[in-house]
Amino acid sequence: MATHRFDPNFTDNVINAMGPKTSPRMRQVMSSLIRHIHDFARENEITVDEWMTGVNFINRAGQMSDHKRNEGQLLCDVIGLESLVDEITFKLAEQAADAPTATAILGPFFRHDTPHRKNGDNMVTGVDDGEMVFMHGRVVDFVTKKPLVGAVVEAWEASTNGLYEQQDPNQVEHNLRGKFTTDADGRYYFYCLRPTPYPVPDDGPAGKLLELMDRHPFRPAHIHLLVTYEGYRPLTTQIFDRSDRYLTNDSVFAVKDSLIVDFVPRKDDPQAALELEYDVRLVPGNVKTNGV
Amino acid sequence: MATHRFDPNFTDNVINAMGPKTSPRMRQVMSSLIRHIHDFARENEITVDEWMTGVNFINRAGQMSDHKRNEGQLLCDVIGLESLVDEITFKLAEQAADAPTATAILGPFFRHDTPHRKNGDNMVTGVDDGEMVFMHGRVVDFVTKKPLVGAVVEAWEASTNGLYEQQDPNQVEHNLRGKFTTDADGRYYFYCLRPTPYPVPDDGPAGKLLELMDRHPFRPAHIHLLVTYEGYRPLTTQIFDRSDRYLTNDSVFAVKDSLIVDFVPRKDDPQAALELEYDVRLVPGNVKTNGV
Repeated sequence: MATHRFDPNFTDNVINAMGPKTSPRMRQVMSSLIRHIHDFARENEITVDEWMTGVNFINRAGQMSDHKRNEGQLLCDVIGLESLVDEITFKLAEQAADAPTATAILGPFFRHDTPHRKNGDNMVTGVDDGEMVFMHGRVVDFVTKKPLVGAVVEAWEASTNGLYEQQDPNQVEHNLRGKFTTDADGRYYFYCLRPTPYPVPDDGPAGKLLELMDRHPFRPAHIHLLVTYEGYRPLTTQIFDRSDRYLTNDSVFAVKDSLIVDFVPRKDDPQAALELEYDVRLVPGNVKTNGV
Repeated sequence: MATHRFDPNFTDNVINAMGPKTSPRMRQVMSSLIRHIHDFARENEITVDEWMTGVNFINRAGQMSDHKRNEGQLLCDVIGLESLVDEITFKLAEQAADAPTATAILGPFFRHDTPHRKNGDNMVTGVDDGEMVFMHGRVVDFVTKKPLVGAVVEAWEASTNGLYEQQDPNQVEHNLRGKFTTDADGRYYFYCLRPTPYPVPDDGPAGKLLELMDRHPFRPAHIHLLVTYEGYRPLTTQIFDRSDRYLTNDSVFAVKDSLIVDFVPRKDDPQAALELEYDVRLVPGNVKTNGV
């Protein structure tokens, strides 16, 4: 570290400026953040010009953000931060049954008002160039393996043009999303699209950052799932197509081995040439779900 | 570091995603930034909720920023980052005469269209509750100590209500700012206000952060100076009143010992009861000045 060239007390002075009414968590987090950011600036001898470039970058991210777009989140995503805090939060929740918080990433395209659909329904409207999939599985108790009857499986995915319905004026409302309730055997089943890879929006600071890092903006094909059942921890996840070329180089680093699934041929179904079986094991225990 | 609890390869994977066309500087800076931010998240076990709070904070800073206000910059300021990169840049410029960049902080209230005024002019209009100061000094060559004739000394300061003229609809345009040209002896002189302490804007994320850190928003009283002369490095600085109560706890950590000045009584001048002498030594050498 090149700290010796600069005022050795500066960082401590900034940290020690915090007053006695700072909460313990705030003091810990801000002390660490200030120290890391200062070390980053010193180690790389960041100049005023470079710093101001960064400030303008971040301000532009905020200016582009609204209720349909979160560019600050996307900037974090392309440097792996969202996936990392997801892993951290997930580990913490695993280890502490009574943890006050056990959130998980829904992503920016979740909707709170997704309609219920019947098992066997087709959630695809107006897509001519996709591969249809019959998706099905069971929701069971992770411990007893018993089926959970009446669990809610919510799924959402982008269309073949890479857009979720709320991004795309040409899709019908709530296209490619739905809530399904498990039957007496704990089963859910519906028709959806085989997901296709798409680029994260690259017309803002995050896209510029990707370009500067000589990286592509693509995410591997995936389906979002949120599975809930009273008395169990909600599961928010994304499942990924094993055959996708971006599986090993997701632009937001969200792929985990356990989330890779196989789409297999389906016979004698005029509605779908592919099939996907995906079972969900929910962990008993009530936790706060961050408003979901 | 609590890194062992989490995927040990994750950070390297994110860094190694950078492609071959990344510039060497970009690769260095982003590798270091990604490593520091990831270490910060792991060491403090940042949760998804906490991270999302930070994202919203940063997005709001961008949304509040416009041509009159830079909240992203202010967020950096209250954690000492602007002062630190100023120190780093200043050290680099000191050590490398041919450095391609030698910028310094102008702050958000500099204006490119500040009018020229005559030596002896009063740049204060419509302020009844301030102390008037006769400010004067010489601009000299740092090496030879010879006076620089025709150097431009630009000064700007807030009014007694804590507002710069462009923040305050009740001040006349260009109030409390002016450009003065040194005379045949290298002298400049004008009337200004004794500066008064003022709070940085605390109605946005930076103010919230200060509150969470139990800190006050005040800056010690200061006058901004930008001194330029063809063939010399421009000097951008702030000078601080030694008697100010916020001298040791500036909310943006900009005070340096060498920038503290004394306002002393002035006799027999109906226009000012105080006097400030401040000589400026410019360093020979042309450097890029970041558009100033």
